[in-house]
Amino acid sequence: MSAAHSRPPADTGLLSPVRAGTPVEYAVCDHAWLQAMLDSEAALARAQARLGTVPEAAAESITLAARAERFDMRAIALAARETANPVVGLVQELTREVARSDPSAAEYVHRGSTSQDILDTGAMLVARRALLLVRADLARASRALGRLADAHRDTAMAGRTLALQAVPTTFGLKAAGWRQLVADADLRLGRVLDGGLPVSLGGAAGTLAGYLEYARIDTGDPEWEQGAYLDRLVDSFAAETGLARPVLPWHSLRTPVADLAGALGFTAGALGKIAADVQSLARTEVAEVAEPAVSGRGSSSAMPHKRNPVLSTLIRSAALQVPVLAAGLTQCLVSEDERSAGAWHAEWQPLRECLRLTGGAAHTVAELAEGLRADPERMRANLELTGSRIVSERLAAVLTPRLGKAAARRLLTRASAEAARGGSLLDALLAEAPELCVRPGRAALAALCDPAAYTGAAAELVDRALDPSAPAG
Amino acid sequence: MSAAHSRPPADTGLLSPVRAGTPVEYAVCDHAWLQAMLDSEAALARAQARLGTVPEAAAESITLAARAERFDMRAIALAARETANPVVGLVQELTREVARSDPSAAEYVHRGSTSQDILDTGAMLVARRALLLVRADLARASRALGRLADAHRDTAMAGRTLALQAVPTTFGLKAAGWRQLVADADLRLGRVLDGGLPVSLGGAAGTLAGYLEYARIDTGDPEWEQGAYLDRLVDSFAAETGLARPVLPWHSLRTPVADLAGALGFTAGALGKIAADVQSLARTEVAEVAEPAVSGRGSSSAMPHKRNPVLSTLIRSAALQVPVLAAGLTQCLVSEDERSAGAWHAEWQPLRECLRLTGGAAHTVAELAEGLRADPERMRANLELTGSRIVSERLAAVLTPRLGKAAARRLLTRASAEAARGGSLLDALLAEAPELCVRPGRAALAALCDPAAYTGAAAELVDRALDPSAPAG
Amino acid sequence: MSAAHSRPPADTGLLSPVRAGTPVEYAVCDHAWLQAMLDSEAALARAQARLGTVPEAAAESITLAARAERFDMRAIALAARETANPVVGLVQELTREVARSDPSAAEYVHRGSTSQDILDTGAMLVARRALLLVRADLARASRALGRLADAHRDTAMAGRTLALQAVPTTFGLKAAGWRQLVADADLRLGRVLDGGLPVSLGGAAGTLAGYLEYARIDTGDPEWEQGAYLDRLVDSFAAETGLARPVLPWHSLRTPVADLAGALGFTAGALGKIAADVQSLARTEVAEVAEPAVSGRGSSSAMPHKRNPVLSTLIRSAALQVPVLAAGLTQCLVSEDERSAGAWHAEWQPLRECLRLTGGAAHTVAELAEGLRADPERMRANLELTGSRIVSERLAAVLTPRLGKAAARRLLTRASAEAARGGSLLDALLAEAPELCVRPGRAALAALCDPAAYTGAAAELVDRALDPSAPAG
Amino acid sequence: MSAAHSRPPADTGLLSPVRAGTPVEYAVCDHAWLQAMLDSEAALARAQARLGTVPEAAAESITLAARAERFDMRAIALAARETANPVVGLVQELTREVARSDPSAAEYVHRGSTSQDILDTGAMLVARRALLLVRADLARASRALGRLADAHRDTAMAGRTLALQAVPTTFGLKAAGWRQLVADADLRLGRVLDGGLPVSLGGAAGTLAGYLEYARIDTGDPEWEQGAYLDRLVDSFAAETGLARPVLPWHSLRTPVADLAGALGFTAGALGKIAADVQSLARTEVAEVAEPAVSGRGSSSAMPHKRNPVLSTLIRSAALQVPVLAAGLTQCLVSEDERSAGAWHAEWQPLRECLRLTGGAAHTVAELAEGLRADPERMRANLELTGSRIVSERLAAVLTPRLGKAAARRLLTRASAEAARGGSLLDALLAEAPELCVRPGRAALAALCDPAAYTGAAAELVDRALDPSAPAG
Repeated sequence: MSAAHSRPPADTGLLSPVRAGTPVEYAVCDHAWLQAMLDSEAALARAQARLGTVPEAAAESITLAARAERFDMRAIALAARETANPVVGLVQELTREVARSDPSAAEYVHRGSTSQDILDTGAMLVARRALLLVRADLARASRALGRLADAHRDTAMAGRTLALQAVPTTFGLKAAGWRQLVADADLRLGRVLDGGLPVSLGGAAGTLAGYLEYARIDTGDPEWEQGAYLDRLVDSFAAETGLARPVLPWHSLRTPVADLAGALGFTAGALGKIAADVQSLARTEVAEVAEPAVSGRGSSSAMPHKRNPVLSTLIRSAALQVPVLAAGLTQCLVSEDERSAGAWHAEWQPLRECLRLTGGAAHTVAELAEGLRADPERMRANLELTGSRIVSERLAAVLTPRLGKAAARRLLTRASAEAARGGSLLDALLAEAPELCVRPGRAALAALCDPAAYTGAAAELVDRALDPSAPAG
Repeated sequence: MSAAHSRPPADTGLLSPVRAGTPVEYAVCDHAWLQAMLDSEAALARAQARLGTVPEAAAESITLAARAERFDMRAIALAARETANPVVGLVQELTREVARSDPSAAEYVHRGSTSQDILDTGAMLVARRALLLVRADLARASRALGRLADAHRDTAMAGRTLALQAVPTTFGLKAAGWRQLVADADLRLGRVLDGGLPVSLGGAAGTLAGYLEYARIDTGDPEWEQGAYLDRLVDSFAAETGLARPVLPWHSLRTPVADLAGALGFTAGALGKIAADVQSLARTEVAEVAEPAVSGRGSSSAMPHKRNPVLSTLIRSAALQVPVLAAGLTQCLVSEDERSAGAWHAEWQPLRECLRLTGGAAHTVAELAEGLRADPERMRANLELTGSRIVSERLAAVLTPRLGKAAARRLLTRASAEAARGGSLLDALLAEAPELCVRPGRAALAALCDPAAYTGAAAELVDRALDPSAPAG
Repeated sequence: MSAAHSRPPADTGLLSPVRAGTPVEYAVCDHAWLQAMLDSEAALARAQARLGTVPEAAAESITLAARAERFDMRAIALAARETANPVVGLVQELTREVARSDPSAAEYVHRGSTSQDILDTGAMLVARRALLLVRADLARASRALGRLADAHRDTAMAGRTLALQAVPTTFGLKAAGWRQLVADADLRLGRVLDGGLPVSLGGAAGTLAGYLEYARIDTGDPEWEQGAYLDRLVDSFAAETGLARPVLPWHSLRTPVADLAGALGFTAGALGKIAADVQSLARTEVAEVAEPAVSGRGSSSAMPHKRNPVLSTLIRSAALQVPVLAAGLTQCLVSEDERSAGAWHAEWQPLRECLRLTGGAAHTVAELAEGLRADPERMRANLELTGSRIVSERLAAVLTPRLGKAAARRLLTRASAEAARGGSLLDALLAEAPELCVRPGRAALAALCDPAAYTGAAAELVDRALDPSAPAG
Repeated sequence: MSAAHSRPPADTGLLSPVRAGTPVEYAVCDHAWLQAMLDSEAALARAQARLGTVPEAAAESITLAARAERFDMRAIALAARETANPVVGLVQELTREVARSDPSAAEYVHRGSTSQDILDTGAMLVARRALLLVRADLARASRALGRLADAHRDTAMAGRTLALQAVPTTFGLKAAGWRQLVADADLRLGRVLDGGLPVSLGGAAGTLAGYLEYARIDTGDPEWEQGAYLDRLVDSFAAETGLARPVLPWHSLRTPVADLAGALGFTAGALGKIAADVQSLARTEVAEVAEPAVSGRGSSSAMPHKRNPVLSTLIRSAALQVPVLAAGLTQCLVSEDERSAGAWHAEWQPLRECLRLTGGAAHTVAELAEGLRADPERMRANLELTGSRIVSERLAAVLTPRLGKAAARRLLTRASAEAARGGSLLDALLAEAPELCVRPGRAALAALCDPAAYTGAAAELVDRALDPSAPAG
């Protein structure tokens, strides 16, 4: 390693502004991961101490030594190349650190254990902490979107399909839809948390043989009952870590990681929908919403007049990355034997990225939702752009009983095409079918042509969606 | 189109043997999809008839006409290029078909509706039927794997990690793990079904305005209450289709499709784990399991002696395909405006592929599990291959109290390396440390060297996993 | 199979309008794939006949029998479940078919061969035919885009970044960029074709042993030189199929498939960029381009006034699907042993989908490019929307020598914010800095504020890009 | 930010051992990326100085100031959240740094430029440096694999298909195949490098208007010719950076990034094939190859006897990650307008990961190839495992002229099944068809049953593949 390499080649968020400086970044960085693995070692020792197969004092010494700041993280990372995972090196260093203060305790570090138990339990601890942060930000976003939906329950705007104005809708309904997606994401993340992220405790090949062998020797009790010890050990480890007890060791049954991937991929995608809509509505020519104005925010290196929609840009950048990373994690379910030679190792960094990008996106969505500014006047102005063609569906419904479905449709298609050349749909319609001036009459038709009067059940749908007693999606 | 093109360019499973001829293939083919969309149109008419805004007789005529076999599927497929979806053409043909027998009913076809309501509701009908088939096959597989786990609760075999023999395990524990993954998949699919695949009912842009406008006109009731009609219409459509009522129209809130993708990706991946293990154990040099022997099955075009593990091969082919398809569907959550110009259209074929490949894989897993043959003698023979090095962990545990952890490990590492050159670990150990002949003594050490006596809690874990009162994963 | 299943469950394009009825669909359907595998069998027999190890007459009989329409495609598809590939069943049927007309020739069907040689060679034949179609459509698109770029070399429009108007550009430069992407895609597809899609000829495990053994026996020549025969056999098979000779048999060296995946993923993505831009410019509020107007095209089932941008919608649907399918194919490079038990089988359907979707998208892009209508007046009108804020960069450049960079920028930021509330940038600027009325003077500033006069090197860039002597990208 | 956050949350390789400490890690870390962006700023100033529109002294001051170690990387990363990219903050800091030593030069920092020009040019600089490292490691691997292929040209081993022994092959042919994949990868990476990674120089929206406006003002020359300046500016920037000149500005024509993704995805996948084969052959029961023995390498935290195949494990972990990341980058081709609001931002971190993981994998493959140990005796022993059933194809070929194809195949299928129950294929064959004792005779049949004598053209294929005059794949 040359002198130029004296400092480790770190990532500190330069290429990933969606998460730079957000809380989740601290929860999933190398330091946090190292601490979580150390927490797992300490919890294991304490669990064994609870069962009397490790001395209480040793467990305490191990717990005291298990502080990430005492370890050279980069050295452990480099050593991981020799064993394909960072735990072997970590155990050596932890053993040394424990021995420094309590030599007799060193024997009890990682007793009966295996690298995967420590790394997987650590990963679950990291994931749980990150998920709690994500959900807190989703809760903030949900509240803000609920306020928007409520405030704009009756704010008419153009509904757009296949890039074109279709029929009117309301901004309240749009905001309620965003809120619903946030609730859907939260429900799926909550299910992963509530189902219980599990401890990993399988020993060398998922039979816990090492743990049991040491326990058998340490108790020296001829009546020692292995099944009872098994249950107590897993329960104690779960209690010490605050994680759940799995049905079976899951070294190569990767449901917990695949579940995280699925819920995070969903969340990032759902937040991406909000970002896509904000960008669609923020376009210069549409200008119906604007991102929160913060001094300096959104400025361009070249163009003094721009206020770029940076929050939605960041969110969308995460939405493009997470689903493919999550697919990679789902594929790691195909994990051969009792421990995969590669599929396990392919999970760690992508899992961290999924947590970090989704966490960053959730934080950003909360900020976006809390500050989003809607412009009802502009919405109204855009609704008027097409000279009422936006209500052609309504006119079709009204004219159908009179003319028949096909004829009504033909008439409106012709009139719409004429109006598209300039002028209003109403004028074009009456020019094509002057008899309509009599029945239903021009005034009646004009009333039907008001876009703001054709928002269907938008308001009732907002009410249903905001009703706290409504079932979750 | 040249004469060579007189027959439509169809796929009939030639390139996808994992699903060719399995039940799911029939449930998701173009014919089934067409029928499901027709079912949606008929259910919509009946729902409107329930509410009195469409004549009962018209709804009946529409229902009678809505038989897929009456339609030219290929013509509808070709017409879809003009409108970017097959519903516009389908509605034209259905209207014509209804008019043939009941001209007055033709007015009521697709009344107030939009293409996406029909296609999405049809997709949910197809998905539900397919998921029921998948779950039935998973139930078969689960029963068969439970029998295997039970029968081989105490059948010792080598546990393997990073491609090498690690410590002993049992075949029962392996089978119990497979069964657990099947249960995990079933739970996730069941959650999607139980959460309720929803009808799609939003009209042109998610406000149901078209449905309401026709209803308002048809009832002619000045007291007509829109909110009540909304609720009754959605409930009736849900009742007629057997699907659930969503909180909001979901034209661009794609949770139902993303949920299907997530659960199907998980399922295919989980089944892939079983296939990977079977292949690992079926290798010529391992030969611990064999796929069910069926006459002609697994034969090779070149080698008369081969009995290829074709079932696991097919399953693995699906496990490699579904997760990336599912990622594509998750990305379609980023669906702009009230209907995406492309993201919606990118869902249909991948969703069908996910259903079909996963359904084929589940069917194949059931067949594999029901016929899988395990060879306990070969498992035992392979356990003996390493001259007891496979229990080096146990010896480390036993010697640690005597020698200290580090010294015990060094001794065993040396002895293992020596034994790897030929000979048994026991002999190598005693040569390195002759004092062990005294305490614990050669006989005691020899007893510890029996691989079949070092399966840890494998048997108890099988009991826990097969216990019907155990919580789901 | 119930009566309902009397017809095979086929796909005929219902869920994939981007390719329904396009030429590529015929080139890659099951029938085409079956014919390509039969072509491979016939070419193999003829190649062996060239070398004298199969009778000429037998090769002729095999060639005559190898017509896809004589075979029951569905039966072959169903039989493939027993052997994990369709070739074993196909060979049985072909042998039977040959025997019907020439019993002695039946012995020579598939002589020395293996399923993978036939399926892979067939896949390359299918891919080549499909790629030629794709490239023909890209050539059409390139010509049309070149005409657009040329015609609109000086048509000013707003350049947009991060969803907002940034600085002016020209529609010619945009079209030239689209054309460049088409050229990039064509170059990459051409590289795959020119590098030579290879025959597959490896025999049971890539050593060609079966082919050589039969040849050795058939020649009965003690001087027979195996190396020379090897070269002549591969060369003859290549000549008979029109494919290239690979360096090595590639049963588990999957470069040809990964290369196809790479080039097709690129192409679909590149075409998706064009679609995204067309949609951005076709929005109701922007309206700078419109898709070709074809009677009935783009109509909506609900809204008579809509002319949906269906071509770009279809293209975008393909662009969303192909890259993830291509990723799945790239992963199949990880193909264990001499033939993978699953990775090979996971290639077939996704490869077909990649060809078909990309081919459909290319056909659609050609149609879109040939008929796209640009509206220079609307482009000009949109350029005026921001009261010259779109040239704030230019004003910054002009004022910087006078005020210094930082002060100029601050002034313009303030003036832009003021102008954003209504009014022109020029007025706001002069209100903030009245001294500018003197130098450079209001008239000079007003001239600088003309957006159409600030298109940089757009025109020259179009010239460079359209220059036929320019290097390919 | 709490005290716990006083140190930035960095990644230093803990979760990614495949690249920890390898050269590529230094080439793509945040520090390297920051330096590359600074290099771009400095090169731009020098290019403008070459053309006389920036003072030489200013360009020199900017170049001197543009040293990454002078900047607070984390602060720039955090500031990037406000503008969605790190360049705006970087330009502010660089301007300040330049002003410190040469106030008048500060005006010329980033003159006429835009964030994307700097970030994209920097990315190409980083990518080029990383690709050179990857190719150097591939060259090492290729040489080592060539030596293996040559040394084992005639070392017979079992060829395996669908997990089972199929027919014999040689280890030389396997190594030659690995080498071919490495050559294929190198060719594709070389094509990206040789095609020329381009500078990015487009200004605010791809017209270079800002650059030209400043130049027009600075020259003050009424005869100033914009087209000539354009060409000279791009050429000079290319010369100063050592990158290529693109046909067009590529802010939203993302061919260079998609090409990198394609070549890197291919490379990682290709290297994964080697890893999968090594793992297949290293299994305890197969034991035909072993990874290089390095003291401490491959040790397990639990099992003293294990020497895990860690290098292939690391390589496979990269092969599982890169293709899906590459798919995400390919999707970013769908980049709307003149700069995408999100698709651009989604490229940076995945591009870095693709470079880093592939670079780490290449480094690891070189180490693996240079130290891989093959065990010809064990290969031979495994060839004997099936009692000659592995040559059943050969016997079929020999008996076919005598018995006809179908009868020969039936006979061998029966005999193989019998032999599978124990005993040799030869004995089983003669028991089934005693007449074969006469012709061809037992001795002749026994000679045919030698697996090592049935390796087909394996040796010649090795010669062809190693021939330096052979065409690239």
